[in-house]
Amino acid sequence: MNYPTIPAIDINAAKQAKERQNNLTKPAGSLGRLEEISIQLAGMKADPYPRVDRKAVIVMAADHGVAREGVSAFPAEVTQQMVLNFLNGGAAINVLARQAGAGVFIVDIGVAADFDPSLPGLLHRKVARGTRNMAGGPAMTGEEAEKALTCGMDVMTQIAKKGIDLVATGDMGIGNTTPSSAIAAVMTGLPVAKVTGRGTGIDDDALAHKIKVIEQAIALNQPDPKDALDVLCKVGGLEIAGLAGVMIAAAARRIPVVVDGFISAAAALIAVGLAPDVHKYLFGAHKSVEIGQHAIHKHLGIIPLIDLNLRLGEGTGAVLAFHLIEAASRILREMATFAEAGVSDKE
Amino acid sequence: MNYPTIPAIDINAAKQAKERQNNLTKPAGSLGRLEEISIQLAGMKADPYPRVDRKAVIVMAADHGVAREGVSAFPAEVTQQMVLNFLNGGAAINVLARQAGAGVFIVDIGVAADFDPSLPGLLHRKVARGTRNMAGGPAMTGEEAEKALTCGMDVMTQIAKKGIDLVATGDMGIGNTTPSSAIAAVMTGLPVAKVTGRGTGIDDDALAHKIKVIEQAIALNQPDPKDALDVLCKVGGLEIAGLAGVMIAAAARRIPVVVDGFISAAAALIAVGLAPDVHKYLFGAHKSVEIGQHAIHKHLGIIPLIDLNLRLGEGTGAVLAFHLIEAASRILREMATFAEAGVSDKE
Repeated sequence: MNYPTIPAIDINAAKQAKERQNNLTKPAGSLGRLEEISIQLAGMKADPYPRVDRKAVIVMAADHGVAREGVSAFPAEVTQQMVLNFLNGGAAINVLARQAGAGVFIVDIGVAADFDPSLPGLLHRKVARGTRNMAGGPAMTGEEAEKALTCGMDVMTQIAKKGIDLVATGDMGIGNTTPSSAIAAVMTGLPVAKVTGRGTGIDDDALAHKIKVIEQAIALNQPDPKDALDVLCKVGGLEIAGLAGVMIAAAARRIPVVVDGFISAAAALIAVGLAPDVHKYLFGAHKSVEIGQHAIHKHLGIIPLIDLNLRLGEGTGAVLAFHLIEAASRILREMATFAEAGVSDKE
Repeated sequence: MNYPTIPAIDINAAKQAKERQNNLTKPAGSLGRLEEISIQLAGMKADPYPRVDRKAVIVMAADHGVAREGVSAFPAEVTQQMVLNFLNGGAAINVLARQAGAGVFIVDIGVAADFDPSLPGLLHRKVARGTRNMAGGPAMTGEEAEKALTCGMDVMTQIAKKGIDLVATGDMGIGNTTPSSAIAAVMTGLPVAKVTGRGTGIDDDALAHKIKVIEQAIALNQPDPKDALDVLCKVGGLEIAGLAGVMIAAAARRIPVVVDGFISAAAALIAVGLAPDVHKYLFGAHKSVEIGQHAIHKHLGIIPLIDLNLRLGEGTGAVLAFHLIEAASRILREMATFAEAGVSDKE
């Protein structure tokens, strides 16, 4: 499978943005990470005055065969129910996207239930009715994984054609912290127990069981840490594949990606494994409660923007981070310089 | 001087908000601090569905006699110049307030320059042309400090009468990290060196000098740590007094206050010293680069919402935090419950 070329960061645009930041009416550097973000945006977008007005979150929904091992606090039918909640505008991601002025795109990439084809607002891109149980064999075939990656790239390309400045990744899939922990363990080399958390809220016994299930799946399937597609097939998920595709297609078009929580971080590991330069186009939205995400952030060199003890997914943390990234863009574009405002610079 | 009564937090409204959070279509607690904030808002506002639609930032500007000791990287005339920049909409606080949909109120409470009385948008409430140099005696008389406190309360009351749901505090005053460090040292009991930073960007030598100036001012004036008004007079500032007044008047009307950076935190120390229950109505916006702010946060039990290495003041961090507090309110008010959405709860 071929992936699109990821363009280099535009050093000149970034340099111009940095020079402008140093001339705005504030002590240079006093807006900290907002200044850094604005410079990164300029480099990503090859524009010294980068805008992030048009924003969207892409939520990929899928089910997981491994859910039948009892790794989640919620029943598997919740994936389907939550997709309907998204379409009705009642979920957290809907509320936060409305606030941020961001479009919401819901994709059925692998829910284990049938949706009415006329359901308004749902992107019907089902690759399979959930993955197979990775505790008993590979979660997906190579063909399924590539179809899901292609779906993510296609959805992103479609949205990009309508015009978009900034995209967030979101997920829905009961059981999906389990494949995310498996991917994190395989690709960072850490023990499963160091990258596995309580997901939607399991107790100590269920957590110990979840760790065993993941260890068993890795021992059985023997995913190759150097081959991201192999890892994705054997211990991944359809929504994870789709989000990796979104990241690759966004980076190819210079669209910065705000990576949400643990599942999105696992997708970022896969995306960067398949197309290493994708990492230049990623912002880490927030520090999740899930410890596996911290391991992935460290591995990818991501420093998250927000730390509010979130663990919901859906893209909620990423859409919250939109406000901060938009603030960075507006500061760079809208503030007066010392010369314009007649303010004396540092003595 | 009498201060208004601060009402108790409404435990019932907070309890109703907590119950609702547990019935919304997400694992209970999965939105972390957003859930906690929404519950705090309900208690503060005595409303189980608290709104924060109408927002404002009050920026108090004043000069400092101690600036002539060479404690700042910028010349003192910048206070006046920045006030004009605020009125022209070119400063960081203007940009961020526009993004957040917040009103900006600029108050001349003690700038050492004359503004045209017909200047549109400026609240002319000058108590004095800056403080006196605290390195040579008290910064203010008791009468001046009380006038500045009253000014802050009056401005807040005026704005409250027009209708407001959430207020942020902001400051402008070249040299004002120096009185803030002095207040922090006196009221937390920490050594001056542990609460003093580089402000707008002084070098090592200037920092050592700044610490000496503050130590000298405290030794000379002997402010009484148990008497917040005495501390304010001897080593405070007019904008710090005004912001303390804003906090007291806001709390008295159940309006939550988003405390910006170091100068606002010093004002919060004074406000809580004068009217202890004010602390129930405070949100800490962000963790500043200034170490004195961390000491004050610890002293007041404030856990800030954002950590982006900001050190600008003006209310910039507080207005960024508006987005997160508004998100908390919207989540509580707008999300569907499990019953409404037909989603299965935890097994």
